[in-house]
This record gives sequence, C-alpha cells and structure tokens, in this order.
Amino acid sequence: MANLTLGDREYFKGIGQIKFEGPESDNPLAYRWYDENRVVAGKTLKEHFKFSVAYWHSFNANGTDPFGGPTLNFAWDESSDVITRAKAKMDAAFEFITKLGLPYYCFHDVDVVDYGNDINENDRRLQTMVEYAKQKQAESGVKLLWGTANVFSHERYMNGASTNPDFHVLAHAAAQVKGALDATIALGGENYVFWGGREGYMTLLNTNMKREQEHLARFLHSAKDYARAQGFKGTFFIEPKPMEPTKHQYDYDCATVIGFLRQHDLLGDFKINIEVNHATLAGHTFQHELQVAADAGVLGSVDANRGDYQNGWDTDQFPNNLNELTESMLIFLEAGGLQGGGVNFDAKIRRNSTDPADLFYAHIGGADTFARALITADNILQNSDYRQIRQNRYASFDSGKGQEFEQGKLKLEDLRAYAIEQGEPTLQSGRQEYLENLINRFI
Amino acid sequence: MANLTLGDREYFKGIGQIKFEGPESDNPLAYRWYDENRVVAGKTLKEHFKFSVAYWHSFNANGTDPFGGPTLNFAWDESSDVITRAKAKMDAAFEFITKLGLPYYCFHDVDVVDYGNDINENDRRLQTMVEYAKQKQAESGVKLLWGTANVFSHERYMNGASTNPDFHVLAHAAAQVKGALDATIALGGENYVFWGGREGYMTLLNTNMKREQEHLARFLHSAKDYARAQGFKGTFFIEPKPMEPTKHQYDYDCATVIGFLRQHDLLGDFKINIEVNHATLAGHTFQHELQVAADAGVLGSVDANRGDYQNGWDTDQFPNNLNELTESMLIFLEAGGLQGGGVNFDAKIRRNSTDPADLFYAHIGGADTFARALITADNILQNSDYRQIRQNRYASFDSGKGQEFEQGKLKLEDLRAYAIEQGEPTLQSGRQEYLENLINRFI
Amino acid sequence: MANLTLGDREYFKGIGQIKFEGPESDNPLAYRWYDENRVVAGKTLKEHFKFSVAYWHSFNANGTDPFGGPTLNFAWDESSDVITRAKAKMDAAFEFITKLGLPYYCFHDVDVVDYGNDINENDRRLQTMVEYAKQKQAESGVKLLWGTANVFSHERYMNGASTNPDFHVLAHAAAQVKGALDATIALGGENYVFWGGREGYMTLLNTNMKREQEHLARFLHSAKDYARAQGFKGTFFIEPKPMEPTKHQYDYDCATVIGFLRQHDLLGDFKINIEVNHATLAGHTFQHELQVAADAGVLGSVDANRGDYQNGWDTDQFPNNLNELTESMLIFLEAGGLQGGGVNFDAKIRRNSTDPADLFYAHIGGADTFARALITADNILQNSDYRQIRQNRYASFDSGKGQEFEQGKLKLEDLRAYAIEQGEPTLQSGRQEYLENLINRFI
Amino acid sequence: MANLTLGDREYFKGIGQIKFEGPESDNPLAYRWYDENRVVAGKTLKEHFKFSVAYWHSFNANGTDPFGGPTLNFAWDESSDVITRAKAKMDAAFEFITKLGLPYYCFHDVDVVDYGNDINENDRRLQTMVEYAKQKQAESGVKLLWGTANVFSHERYMNGASTNPDFHVLAHAAAQVKGALDATIALGGENYVFWGGREGYMTLLNTNMKREQEHLARFLHSAKDYARAQGFKGTFFIEPKPMEPTKHQYDYDCATVIGFLRQHDLLGDFKINIEVNHATLAGHTFQHELQVAADAGVLGSVDANRGDYQNGWDTDQFPNNLNELTESMLIFLEAGGLQGGGVNFDAKIRRNSTDPADLFYAHIGGADTFARALITADNILQNSDYRQIRQNRYASFDSGKGQEFEQGKLKLEDLRAYAIEQGEPTLQSGRQEYLENLINRFI
Ligand SMILES: [Co+2]
Ligand SMILES: [Co+2]
Ligand SMILES: [Co+2]
Ligand SMILES: [Co+2]
Ligand SMILES: [Co+2]
Ligand SMILES: [Co+2]
Ligand SMILES: [Co+2]
Ligand SMILES: [Co+2]
Repeated sequence: MANLTLGDREYFKGIGQIKFEGPESDNPLAYRWYDENRVVAGKTLKEHFKFSVAYWHSFNANGTDPFGGPTLNFAWDESSDVITRAKAKMDAAFEFITKLGLPYYCFHDVDVVDYGNDINENDRRLQTMVEYAKQKQAESGVKLLWGTANVFSHERYMNGASTNPDFHVLAHAAAQVKGALDATIALGGENYVFWGGREGYMTLLNTNMKREQEHLARFLHSAKDYARAQGFKGTFFIEPKPMEPTKHQYDYDCATVIGFLRQHDLLGDFKINIEVNHATLAGHTFQHELQVAADAGVLGSVDANRGDYQNGWDTDQFPNNLNELTESMLIFLEAGGLQGGGVNFDAKIRRNSTDPADLFYAHIGGADTFARALITADNILQNSDYRQIRQNRYASFDSGKGQEFEQGKLKLEDLRAYAIEQGEPTLQSGRQEYLENLINRFI
Repeated sequence: MANLTLGDREYFKGIGQIKFEGPESDNPLAYRWYDENRVVAGKTLKEHFKFSVAYWHSFNANGTDPFGGPTLNFAWDESSDVITRAKAKMDAAFEFITKLGLPYYCFHDVDVVDYGNDINENDRRLQTMVEYAKQKQAESGVKLLWGTANVFSHERYMNGASTNPDFHVLAHAAAQVKGALDATIALGGENYVFWGGREGYMTLLNTNMKREQEHLARFLHSAKDYARAQGFKGTFFIEPKPMEPTKHQYDYDCATVIGFLRQHDLLGDFKINIEVNHATLAGHTFQHELQVAADAGVLGSVDANRGDYQNGWDTDQFPNNLNELTESMLIFLEAGGLQGGGVNFDAKIRRNSTDPADLFYAHIGGADTFARALITADNILQNSDYRQIRQNRYASFDSGKGQEFEQGKLKLEDLRAYAIEQGEPTLQSGRQEYLENLINRFI
Repeated sequence: MANLTLGDREYFKGIGQIKFEGPESDNPLAYRWYDENRVVAGKTLKEHFKFSVAYWHSFNANGTDPFGGPTLNFAWDESSDVITRAKAKMDAAFEFITKLGLPYYCFHDVDVVDYGNDINENDRRLQTMVEYAKQKQAESGVKLLWGTANVFSHERYMNGASTNPDFHVLAHAAAQVKGALDATIALGGENYVFWGGREGYMTLLNTNMKREQEHLARFLHSAKDYARAQGFKGTFFIEPKPMEPTKHQYDYDCATVIGFLRQHDLLGDFKINIEVNHATLAGHTFQHELQVAADAGVLGSVDANRGDYQNGWDTDQFPNNLNELTESMLIFLEAGGLQGGGVNFDAKIRRNSTDPADLFYAHIGGADTFARALITADNILQNSDYRQIRQNRYASFDSGKGQEFEQGKLKLEDLRAYAIEQGEPTLQSGRQEYLENLINRFI
Repeated sequence: MANLTLGDREYFKGIGQIKFEGPESDNPLAYRWYDENRVVAGKTLKEHFKFSVAYWHSFNANGTDPFGGPTLNFAWDESSDVITRAKAKMDAAFEFITKLGLPYYCFHDVDVVDYGNDINENDRRLQTMVEYAKQKQAESGVKLLWGTANVFSHERYMNGASTNPDFHVLAHAAAQVKGALDATIALGGENYVFWGGREGYMTLLNTNMKREQEHLARFLHSAKDYARAQGFKGTFFIEPKPMEPTKHQYDYDCATVIGFLRQHDLLGDFKINIEVNHATLAGHTFQHELQVAADAGVLGSVDANRGDYQNGWDTDQFPNNLNELTESMLIFLEAGGLQGGGVNFDAKIRRNSTDPADLFYAHIGGADTFARALITADNILQNSDYRQIRQNRYASFDSGKGQEFEQGKLKLEDLRAYAIEQGEPTLQSGRQEYLENLINRFI
C-alpha cells in the first residue's frame, strides 16, 4: 500500500485512506473486492492489475465538452505561476493516488505542466516537474506505469503529428516525444505509449494514406532507437482507436495495429495498450481485442473504461459491467496477464459529477469491478468445465489426420479423400447458452 | 458485346438487347452512361470494369428473408430433375447476361447445381454443368470472372468450414473447394474467391481463435498449392466482411486481411475482393477499403453493391450514390484499376421487386452509376487541380530535410533540432470543403 | 407449477422436470434463482413475470438464416399430414413448457399449424388446433399469454399487411387477424399482440407514409372493435421495432407508438409489448423503453431477449446481462409491474446449439437472470438510499416556487424574477458513479 | 440580393461579392446553381430556401474539439472590451453574409455577445447589440430567420435547463429565454427555436423522466405565452436531436417531438426544425424526418448540414450529397416547402480548414447542392412518371371497397369476406430500382 503523500495543502479534505472492507461493507468509500494482497492464480491483485490513475482525466479535465464549458473548478489551478500550479496539481495527484492506495500513475507531458511554443522552455518545465515527481514517487512508493506525449491538442497538430503532410510539424512532434521519453526514463517509467490522436485523416480527398503511414513507421523507429540508446528497457505501446477526433485513425484496432507493426518490423519492441471504449467504437468487444492481442503475443496494457452502446463517441466512463469484465478476465488469465503494462483508468467522471467524492467513487467502483471479475474468472477456470469444454472442442486436431493437417502433411486431395471416407459429419453443438449460464453461475 | 444466347425457352420475354443510348435517353431499358467501347484513361469501360453478373443473387435468391418466404417464382426452377433444372437456370442466366451485354459472370458451386451429401455425386453434377457452361461461354463470349465454393450454407458448416473445430468438417470443405477450383480452371475462370461466411465465431466463450486462424491459413495454402499444381494462373481473392452470419468474421476488413496474408506468407498469391456493403458494415467507406488495398498492392476485385446506412445488415442493394462512387473511382483510377478482377454485381433486387424487368433496371442502374462515376473521376483528374493540391500538400518531404527523413537519415534528436531551428510552423488548411465542391462541380 | 404434459411420444427424453435448487446448485438443468413461489415486493415471482415460451422460436425455427439452411431437425415435423404434424408439435411444446414449469405460452397463427392460401381452410385448421390446445391447457394448467397473427411472412405481405398499398392484401390481413383473435379468445388468451413486421417501407420513393399509417390506425380500430364485440376483455399490445425486415417500421419505438396511439384514439385499449433487442436496435436501452412506456401508463408486456451490441440485426439471444436487467427491474418494480402481459422469451438458441438440452439451458438462464435481477432490484429499493437520492433530487419542486411552477402559477417573467432574486445556483452532482456502484454492491 | 455591409474594418479581404455564374463556371468563389432569382415550382430559390448563416459556427466556433484547442484565430475577437468585441464580430458577420448574398441569419443570445452571471447585465448587453443589429439589418436587407437562447453551455445547465432537477436553474433558463425572445421580437425575427441541448439524461438511475418532461412542457407554454403577449406572430420550433451532449435527449426525433407536442397541447404554436445530422444520428434519413414532419403539418425549418455515416457524433459538415438531397427535395416540394422557417447552415468548416476562403467555399457548396437538388427534384416531378407511379400504387383505395375502408365503413368481418371473394392477390412490384434509376437520370 502506498504511503499517504500530501503537499502543503490537503485537496480532498474529509476523505481519508480508502481501505478494503469486503463485499459486505456498505461504506461507499471502501473497496469491497479489491484487496491488493489477495492472491489469485498465483499473483496478488496488485501485481495482476498494476492499477494506474490517469493524470489527464483526473487532474486536468474540467468538465468542458463540445457543448459547454468547465464544471469542475480545481483548487490546484489557482496560482498564476506555471510551475507553482504544476506542483500544486502534482500534490493533489499524489494525495489522491495515495488515498486510493493505487500503485501507479500515467501522464502526457502537457498534463504535468503547461506547454508554450518554445521547445527548450517546455523541456525545462518538464524537467523541473520530473525532479519534483521523483521526490513524490520516492515518498509515496507510487510508480510511473507509462508516459506519453500529447501531440494532438496543439493547433500545429491539426493535420496530424508524425503523419502531418508538413515535415516541419513532424519535427515538432519529434521534439515533444523526445522530451516525454526523457521524462519517462528519468522517472523509471515502465513503458511508453503512443496514442495517435490525429494520426489519420479527415477526408481521403486530401490524403496520401500510404505516405503518411510510412512516415508514422519511420517516426516510431526513430523514437524507439532514441529511447533504447538512452537505456530504456521498457515496452512501447500503441493504443488503437478507430476514429475521433479524426474520421479515421490509422491505429484502428488491434488487428490493424499488429499488421502495421509486422509490416514495418516493429513487433519486437511494440505491444498494444487496449482501451475498452476504443474496442467497442471499432465494432468489437473488449474481449475480442484482448484475444487478438494475446494471440499475437502483444497484450501489453489496458486502458480501463467503458463506452455507452447507444452513443457513438468516446464516453470514457468508469467500468461497471460484471458480465463483460468477467468474460474479459477469462482471456486475461488464460493469456497469462499483461506484458509490461497495467490497468490504467483512462476514464473520467461525468461532467455533472461535481462532488469531490465522485472521483473516489469512480475509481473504487472501477477497481472493484475488475477485482471481482478476475476472482470470478479464476473461479470459473478452477471450478467448472469451462476449460475442458473448450479443449475437447478441438480434440480432432490433437491426433490422427487432424494433427497431420496442423503439421502441414495433408494436401487438398488428401482432405477430400478423408471426407469421403468418413462420410457426413455429426453436428456438434456450440453450447453457447450453457457457457453463458456458467458465467452467471459464478458471478 | 456478347452474343445473345438463348436456350430452348426465352425467360425474359419482351425484353431485348439492352443498348447504350446516351444520357439524354429516357428509355429505362437502355444504358445512359455505360458505353462499353468508350475509352477513358486509356482503356475501354468494358476493360476497366469487367462487369460481372452474380449467379446467386440473380438466379437463385428467391426473395426469402428471415421474416418471410419466397416472392420470386423462377420459371427455370420448374423441373424436378436436378440437371434439367440446372441447365434451365443456366439458359436463363446466359439469356440475361447477354441481353444486358455484360462480359462476365461469377458463381458458387451450389449456385450452378444443387448439391446433396455425396461428394462424388456433387462433383459429377458440377462437371456436367461445366461442360454445359463451356458451350454457353463459347456461344456467347461471356467469361467467368471467378468461381467459389459455398462452404457456409450446409448445416455441417454451422461452426465454420476451414475454421471448424471439427477436422472432419474441414475435410468436407476441402472436398468442395477442390471441386470448385477444378470447375473454375476448366472454364477458364480468371480468379478464385474465398468468402469466409462462417469463418469466425458466434461467441469467444467456446472459441480458440488462434488455432482456428492457423487452420484457415493452412487451408488456404493447401487450396492454392492444389490449384497451382493444376496450372491455375489466376489470382486468389479474399473477400472481407466484418460480421454476419457470424458475430465476428476473421476476414473483418482489408487491413485485417492484409495483416493475415502477410503473417501467413500468402501475399504473393492472394489479393482482395472488396464488397461495398462489407466496407460500410466494418465502419469504413468503400473509398477507404479501396485505398487500403491499393496501398498494399492487393486491390484485386470489387463486389459492387451498397448498404443502407440506417440498417446494420448486408442489404446488398444495387449501387446508386454518385458522390460516393465518384470519390471511389478517383482512387480506382489512381491505383491503376483492379488486379485481375472486375466489378461483380453482388447485389440483389428488393424482395418486393417482382417484375421481370426489375432485375434489368437494377443492373443497368448499377453499370451506369459506375460508368458515370469513372468518367467524372477521370475528368477531375484531367481537368482540375485535384492532383496538384494533393501533391503539393506533401512537398516538404520531396526535398531537403523532409526527404532525408523519408530516407531514414534523421534521428529523433535531428528532428528536434530542425523544429527548434525553424520555429513554430504555419497552419496549412486541409481544404476539405474546396475539394468536396470540386467533386460536385464535375458530377 | 404446471403439470408435466406429454403426448404419445416423449420428445425431450432424458430431461425431466426442471426444479429450483438455489444459487449454490451446480446442476445446469435446475433453476438457481427462479423460485416461482418466492415472494418479492408483495407478489410471487410467478405472478411478477408470467414467463411465457414462444412457439415460433422454440418449435418452428429450425436454424435457417440468410446464409444457410436448417440445422435443427425436429422430430415433431416428421408426419406429412398437416394436422398430425401440428398436434405432434403441440405435444412437444407442452412437454417442453411443463418440463420447464413455466406458466404461459404465446403463438402466431401459423406457428400452430401450417397455412395455405384458402382462408376458410386455414380457419378450420386453426380451430382444430384450438380444440386440441384447450385440452392441453386444461391438462397442464399452462395458459395463453397472448396470440397474434403472422401477417408478414407470406409473399402477399411483401409490401405490408394493413399498410399495403393494395387494399386487397389488407383484406387478407384482416381475415387472418380475425382468425387469430377468435383463437385467442377461445383459448382464454389474456392479451393480443400486433407486431408490424412489414408495416413500414423499403424506400420512401414509392411510399405514401401518411396514407399507410392512417390505414394502420383504421385497421387496428376494426380489429379492436371486432374483438370487443366477441367479448374479449384483454389488452391489445403493439410491439415496437425500428427496422428489419423493412428499412423503417412505423412502430419504431415506444415514443413513436405512444404518439401514434394518442393521435388515433387508441390509447385506451392498446399498450406496449417491449422487446429488449428492438429497444437496442432503436438506439435506446431496454431501461429507457420501459420508462417511456411506464410514464405513459402503457407498460403492458415484455419480449425478453437480448441483442449483440456489435451486430445491427435482431439476434434474439437469451437474456444474460446482470447489470442491464437489474437496472431494468428497478423501473419494472417502481412502475408496479406489467399491465396485463408477462415476460415472453422471444429468443432463440443459436443456430449451432443443436443439443436438445440447449433449449432448456437457454430458458433456464433467461428465467434465472430475470429472477435474480428482480430480487436484486427489490433489495436496492428496500435497503439502500436509491429512492431517497432520487426523491431529494427534485425536492425544489415539492414546495414553494417550484411547486407553484408545477401548478402552472408562474409566468416567464416570474421565473426570471426568481432567478435574479436567488442569484447563481449551486452545482449539484448527479452522483452517477455513486449510483452505479450501488447497483454492483447489490448484485 | 443583400447590400454589401462592411464595418470599420474589412475582415475577409480579397474576397468580393459572390455571384451566380452558372454550372459551367470553374470559379470556386461563385455559385453554380444557386441563382436566387430563378423560379422553380412557382417561387424563387431565395423564397424556397431563405438561406441563413449560423452565427455560432461561423463567427464563434474556433476549432476547439474534445481533443484540441483553437485553430482559428478571429480578427474580430481582438478587443478586450465585451461590446467592442461583439460589434466587431457583428461587423464581420454582416460582411460575410452580404458577400455571400444570403438573405438571413440566426443566433443564440451568447453568440452575439458574451454573457456573465448577472442576468440584468446580460440583458443590457444583448439589448445594446440588438440596437446595433437593427442598423446592420436595415443597411444590408438581411433578416433574422430565428433567435434562440443557449441554455446548455453554462455550468449551471449541466443537469439540464427546463428539465433541471433544481427549480432554481430552471428559473435561470427562463430569464435567458425571455431575453432571447425579446431580442428576436425586437429584430423582427420570423421564428424562435428551442434546441434542448441538455434536456435529457446522463443516466436513468438519477432521473425522473416523467417529471422532467412535464417541466419541459410547462416551460414551453410559459415561453410561448410570454412571446404571444409581446405580439410575437412567428412560429416556435423544436429542433430534435437523439443524443449528445446527453446520453438521451427528450426531443429524440420528429415522431417523438410530435407526440410530445400533441400530448401537451403545443401543436398549434410549435413546428419542427429538422437538422440533417440529427436525423441520421437518430437512425433515420433526412428524407424520413422531412416526411414525418410534413405529414403532421409541422415541417417548419431546416438546419442544413450532414454527418459522417462512419462517425457517431454530430460532425455538422456542410451538405454535399446529391442523391440524398434530391430525394429530400422531392418531399420538400410535395409538402409545399417550409412553414415559416428556412434553410439554415448549421454547419461548420473542418477544424483544419484554416484559410479565410474556406468558410466561403463551404457555404457556396451548401447552397449550390440544395439549389441543384431542388431544380432536379422539380424536374423529376414535372417530367417523369414519378408522381403517377406513386399515385397508382394506392389506387385501390380511391374507389370501391378500398375507399369504403378509408371512410370507416368496413368491419373486420367485411374485410375478411372481401378477401375470400377476391381470392389470392397478385404480387405488385415496389419498383424500387426503377425509381432509384429515375433519380440518377435527372441529376
Ligand atoms: Co486511452
Ligand atoms: Co477513450
Ligand atoms: Co460479396
Ligand atoms: Co454483402
Ligand atoms: Co418480439
Ligand atoms: Co427480435
Ligand atoms: Co441545429
Ligand atoms: Co448538429
């Protein structure tokens, strides 16, 4: 458990350390399932999840949306001095994270401190805050899950960053990524993320998609080479998203990203950070994206949230669906968990959730839902016929002609001969309803 | 122009040869834009499109849908003898195709003749019909664009064909594919298509996705090796579709398929057959899918139709949208057209389009819309600043530091230095509205 | 509990009476939550739900889908004699329903017995089966929740039934509805349903929407008047659906149907049958549709199933989502339950669920999920601050100026004066995350 | 044509009066179809459309989106004085509108001048600008199509305005609406619009939907009564939208709004303002929403724009689709046009359209597409069998038994007797493909 770490001022007064109290507790400010020391499938819940608080949603986003202004007025934003304000925000962040008792955090460069247009000055600001964060991390025990650069919000990135048609803009993105990599490395960040916010197009009419994607690949190579040269041992993550803010984003979904990484010889260093809401916006389930990534050996990290199935944009709500998460944790466990990353709450409270406690409820609910889902999934794997049913289903490939087929020993003609010899196959039920009932039996 | 080719009986009485009459014609049974001999961008329209009539939608589909039975009672289905019925249908098909004057057709094995459960008997039936088709092709000049096997309709394929968990079923699929390949080769078919109707899953709860996809890859290799051994020189196509009938189909979209082909070393022999409605069901535009395939060098063929943006299933309507097709034909022309394939009308008349003429109107409208779109797109390329605007947009990469970046000569630090040296970039408009107006100026 | 009611032959051999065994049971053929005698909020679960088995999905649908033929070969379909076959099917139906111990069933006319094109003969067939069903109902204690006429599957209805542009077709629909009403009344059916399968349009280009909707209203009046004249005391239900099979269905969603009923003076006799999957296809949640209907006093009945959020058609899967159903049961309980109707499993097992037990698992899972959700919702209402929070939120309208506003006593100027007098309001959190956690605390 | 109306400074230098030059013109800053004096179906294009420029998108929206800051730096925003800035903006607005030669504009109160939290001060500011606008209108001839109040952007409206659970907030909304009504009346505004930006819910868990909707109805009555008392003779419009910013908006679509207006006795004074992108987000076509409104006699006004079928949020792009608009103009013409309103470009240039000319291209393209579509639709109505086909399709209801049915003279039994007497009906093709071809023939 992290050490409570306050700054000069307490921002979330009246809310103390959040503790695990068990499923029977009716305390809304306690964990009911997330007992960080509970061992499930050989690891503690803390190790499984490496829960992380996202700087941007929790300490920067103020409720603004396309149809309205801020609703959250942050006490840490009061100072007019850039660095004083940034330190106050970091104080608030570590207070919040340690009150929650979560072990990790994540940030974009511009979350930590405001950026202007002067690259050197921006780097100095970030370095100042890196020194401050080092102290905070040491004091609290909280670690950096990953860092990233925001190369989509500034007006210069309106046509993309590394895929911008103007080389000049690409160079600015490189400057920013270098700074964010330096900060991540300095803070012992375990991973580094690329989310391509405007790496895509608004219309194909003005876009050379092939050239832009080649620039993206080359840019990623440059960033990786730089970081490796600086001694970075962590994993790089691509975070897929199908659209928004652009009409189409190049990192559409896991299958698309994996294809891109393979084509451009990046599979060794890059894995995937799957965001739940991005999965559903892409027409997939979260489960599907986990499985696709796991099958390719690139299930790196998770951005935990949820969307709204009736709304077609990134609502980034906190996770709450027990059925969907239980099914997801089955895949998570069978894949052996995450490679390098953790479960980062890339989620925001609703614009009208204006009580200070709301941010706590949200994170508590998210952590509890994941914890309960993992415990349930482990139960299913240990105490039901789930695994057996799945294994038996493919038994015809485990020996005999089926095995020969898998070994590449059969030609099309051989297969035809086998079909004739064996006659018409028996129908074998997929048993979907049985398996769905099984999930609910264990929730 | 194909030769009118009737059988013993005329099925579309009262409708003669459909001719090109020009845009001013008000004859609903004439082409207004599709003049097969018109030369656009160095090729005739006939060569550009290689329009093809789809056997299944036009001569088999009888109006049945999930909520109702047949509405179309085909005169060619009257005989109780399998082969007599199949020949009557083929007579009707060639009558229709030649009255339309289109140069190609496509089929699944089971479209041509009814299949039972006896593999040898099925092959004999198909071979009988291949002989009959050879005569029809010779008489009419109509050619086979591609053949394919329907390995999704029979109950045995309910859990997939080459991705079926039961090897026994996979072997049956192989038998059928062999028969369809033999038929395609015998008829001089120029390509062969795989559409994975049930190659996917209904629920991940019972599915080993990785193992199923590996089976799919191996199966495709077997089929390809067999066909090459028989001397087949054509291209194999994968036809992507995101879902339906399964919840998720492995050949989701072009990017997914390209990634799969690359991973499994199939890129040399396989290209893509893009269906418009499948593109839109996958959350893309048709234009997008064309561009993705073109960029990977696998733009093989097109299944022409359209969906309904308010309905989430494969409506397979005939194409009619001028804006969308004109934008698509810009990509088509800039890509140098299709590699091996053609434009196949994988489209069906509405269930309540019960007049014999309706099938003619549908094909005429589809051909005219493509023709008009191609002519318009060529006009845009020849007579506007469309190309210039697109080229200029990337000019910073054509020389100097941008070019060095493309050549892999710049490190992340170099890029940063360049950004500092050059200062803040100027915003450059994407000019989307200008370009959209341009399209409409030429339609 | 219904009495086990077999015919001459046992169709579901090896499966006996399904019993309630409690949450700890691991028997997949037992209820874990649905204890029909358990009292919740003053009524037994049996009374709350009036669970009903749907004839069409369970005894007619054979696995056919738009891409494949039957996978389920029903033993009750063997006879070549229409009435013998219909009786065998009814035997199977009552065996299944009574083995499940569910109290109700529902049917379309053509589910019960095959129809031809002769109206008088169809009526005779249905009457024969009504006599048979009377015996079955008496023997088993199973009752008819509602009847309905299938006026969408026959080719004559391809352009609609009561909204067909051809009056002649409308008359045929009337004949069928009359027969179905007679059967429903004869069997003591408690309600009668209209689902407008093809009451809508394929394209507006050929449609006079206003005239068609007026025909629909008049048709409903005729049917209602006839039934009332025959002494029918039950409720009529409209079942909304936004699309499929048509591009647009007139009974789009609850709000649309309520507007239509009000406009055409049908609100007194008609209420709504809400199908879950139709709610989600219309861009709503099931919860939303329940609330809309409840607010208008027309929450009549429920077709229980679920869709797939990634697939845009009516998948009609069995319900399994605990979060969604618990939230729905909160509305259900607060609305005082259903008015006249029940919870009908308008759901089908997957096409590849070919084991006889699958149909049992499916219904058991559905009943258990509803039961558990209702019990949980009742718990939330009884043992949490859910109600209090909701009530307090509107307290400003319970007295003072807010109350005067509700009573219509304040003008726009008065409201403005009040705003000035009171100054800027305090922001009040919507507490969404707190409430979402509450749901999961009780599941 | 409006008179060019500049302020002290010219904001769009280098762009003069936009003129009609005809379809052959290749001048991107000229109208090719919108000849305001061209008479179509008895009215000039100017009269048909009453094209209006939207203040918010064109003079306030600066490119900010949920993932990035401003990209458009408006010269009219330079002054630090509220009124000076507002007047500069109005100068720019009238310069733009009169250079385009469009006859109308629209605004929200807060578009015209910045609002603070003091109601009286806000009203004074608006009144000052009303006086300024009067001069501008007089000088230019430009008129106010409609006014509206923005009661969704301020933080106080985060839980709704007239549907806010806190009466205090509702009162503030009333104050603002009163001010906007006063301004609209003072400027001779022809209509007044209500768009319920946050009149809906974020979650049903905290929402009393019925009570909120009753508040909405009462609020609308208050506003209407006030305006009528002030002598306002114009029409009130409700603008439907299904979602965004809320999860669900009460004014979901036309059918929902019409039902609400009828239920709450508002149909006499209120009509509908249909926004294209809101129609498509609601799962409808624009055509559909036009027809629904026309059938109820409430087709009041149009917000012209378009969405992106692959993106599920309100992209508010300028219209460009010829097929969709031509089909829409068929309904527009057959309905006799708009009742009171006009065609307002509620559309924004893309965030990366940063050239001053882009705003001109966008409006020119929008106006031309509507003009071309109307001309084409009129052509179809005058010179094709479109009307005849539609009329003939319902001929069976124009006389005989069908007519008697429409007159309410036939009982269900009578209909059945007619069906028996007439036997099985003949299938009548819906001729969809023929009609679709017809549209393209005339474009
Ligand atoms: Co994320
Ligand atoms: Co997100
Ligand atoms: Co296809
Ligand atoms: Co299709
Ligand atoms: Co239903
Ligand atoms: Co359904
Ligand atoms: Co609007
Ligand atoms: Co909009």
